[in-house]
Amino acid sequence: MPTHRDESSAVTASAPLALRFTKGHGTRNDFVVLDDPEGALALDASVVAALADRRGGIGGDGVIRVVRTRAAGIDAPADAPEWFMDYRNADGSIAEMCGNGVRVFAAFLSRAGRLPGGEAPLDIWTRSGVRRLEVLADPPTPGDPWQVRVGMGPAGVSDGPARTVRIAGRELPAWDADMGNPHAVVELPEDLVLEDLDLTVRPGLDPEPEHGANIEFVVRRGPAHVAMRVFERGVGETQSCGTGAAAVGVVSALWAGDDGSGPWRVDVPGGTLEVARTEDGQVTLAGPAQLVADGETALPHA
Amino acid sequence: MPTHRDESSAVTASAPLALRFTKGHGTRNDFVVLDDPEGALALDASVVAALADRRGGIGGDGVIRVVRTRAAGIDAPADAPEWFMDYRNADGSIAEMCGNGVRVFAAFLSRAGRLPGGEAPLDIWTRSGVRRLEVLADPPTPGDPWQVRVGMGPAGVSDGPARTVRIAGRELPAWDADMGNPHAVVELPEDLVLEDLDLTVRPGLDPEPEHGANIEFVVRRGPAHVAMRVFERGVGETQSCGTGAAAVGVVSALWAGDDGSGPWRVDVPGGTLEVARTEDGQVTLAGPAQLVADGETALPHA
Repeated sequence: MPTHRDESSAVTASAPLALRFTKGHGTRNDFVVLDDPEGALALDASVVAALADRRGGIGGDGVIRVVRTRAAGIDAPADAPEWFMDYRNADGSIAEMCGNGVRVFAAFLSRAGRLPGGEAPLDIWTRSGVRRLEVLADPPTPGDPWQVRVGMGPAGVSDGPARTVRIAGRELPAWDADMGNPHAVVELPEDLVLEDLDLTVRPGLDPEPEHGANIEFVVRRGPAHVAMRVFERGVGETQSCGTGAAAVGVVSALWAGDDGSGPWRVDVPGGTLEVARTEDGQVTLAGPAQLVADGETALPHA
Repeated sequence: MPTHRDESSAVTASAPLALRFTKGHGTRNDFVVLDDPEGALALDASVVAALADRRGGIGGDGVIRVVRTRAAGIDAPADAPEWFMDYRNADGSIAEMCGNGVRVFAAFLSRAGRLPGGEAPLDIWTRSGVRRLEVLADPPTPGDPWQVRVGMGPAGVSDGPARTVRIAGRELPAWDADMGNPHAVVELPEDLVLEDLDLTVRPGLDPEPEHGANIEFVVRRGPAHVAMRVFERGVGETQSCGTGAAAVGVVSALWAGDDGSGPWRVDVPGGTLEVARTEDGQVTLAGPAQLVADGETALPHA
């Protein structure tokens, strides 16, 4: 039977298929966040893809489920941290980690009152293992971003150029950097303008890595300050790539003969990030995370 | 001062800048709908653009404010209908009408209980004048679409080919159709495949209309049934164009020697629409309208 819904109950009504969500972004990498502390949601690929659909659904680069590790239905060590970041790509496939998404995850936990007091760090569980979050500042008003620092694991960087990248009719040397995923980091010569590069087609790599690589183009902007653009493996140019920014920060410090312990500012098209390295070799990535909207949607039909 | 927000009040809290919204789409033309019956919202171009931003905001092809005509701050006749569809493009500019958006507007009014009973029509006010809405069916469950028929005004169609369109290395005859905005409607010859056309670049028109035109490519699928793709003036290819579908229905009926009073089915990439003509020459467009989500966002800082 057709039913009428009273306008005043549109947001708060508990229709059988209603699903609460939050939309957030970190340097314009955007996500649909689902709060599922006790693992009650059946989140199959078709539901994820429908939620991430920018025209027919809510829209996002990915979907993040906030769930207690013990309730997540995953294989995790008994001493794994309490909260698990269950990250899915927009097509519904499972992904290990997302350096921008994890900041949005942290902002969500912060607003939900699930973080320790002050700026004390919180370890969380991801498919890449433990990640340490530090919420650096709460937003003074709704609509302003959180600032979050995340431990991204160690970086593995080649001793020198490992391959060349073809761009703008040139062959430029690229350093390999491993941040859990592969990166090829290229410093642009002074006569090339970062903003003018054509990244609508994938720049060629020689030799081609067996599993491909994200390609980052870097220019120096000042002391401990670079700007970059990125061509993500299997995606194309994006506004921001967390692991790519981390790789660029580490390699830029290396190029400058700097140990990278002081933060490097890395400008991406979607905003500004900071990359540093702790004494034990852990790379940290700090930047904004914005919770844009909260709402309720009818769970798409599977 | 930084403030913590309690998770349970995230949706229902009345923060000073909180703005309620609905997201909806019609054949994948999507909109942010703002309910503002008494005209309390100050909706400048920067706010509209921030809401329509797909990564930093909610995301949509446009923003629709639902407001009483007398409270809308516009110049309207004293006997104008009660409700005004205040439509804005995603860049914040003001637009006259949107054939897909007006169905979403109707679905919103229906759910809010602002329509007359049953399937009785409702006249609304738009910047193109009065439009008549008929909600054909209420959705049986949340997540299913409404079906809405809208009066789109009369069509002005050329007596024969008015210009040619260059596509796929060919010069094809195009009929002009005026639906309040200009259209060039082209029937594809049998040896060209609709799905294979390259619409990443604008097809040329000869002669070029002074104010440009939307260009529709049409193939016959069966009796009173066509499929189309559209290159929208100033935009590029889109999943659906309401006035374009109306123009195609009218011109297809003309080509078939049919008076167009019985409905023509027009398949667009984003779904299916139906076009008919009433006895007084009014073109009607019928199709789905889906209300996807309801929520609350922090009003972006202007």
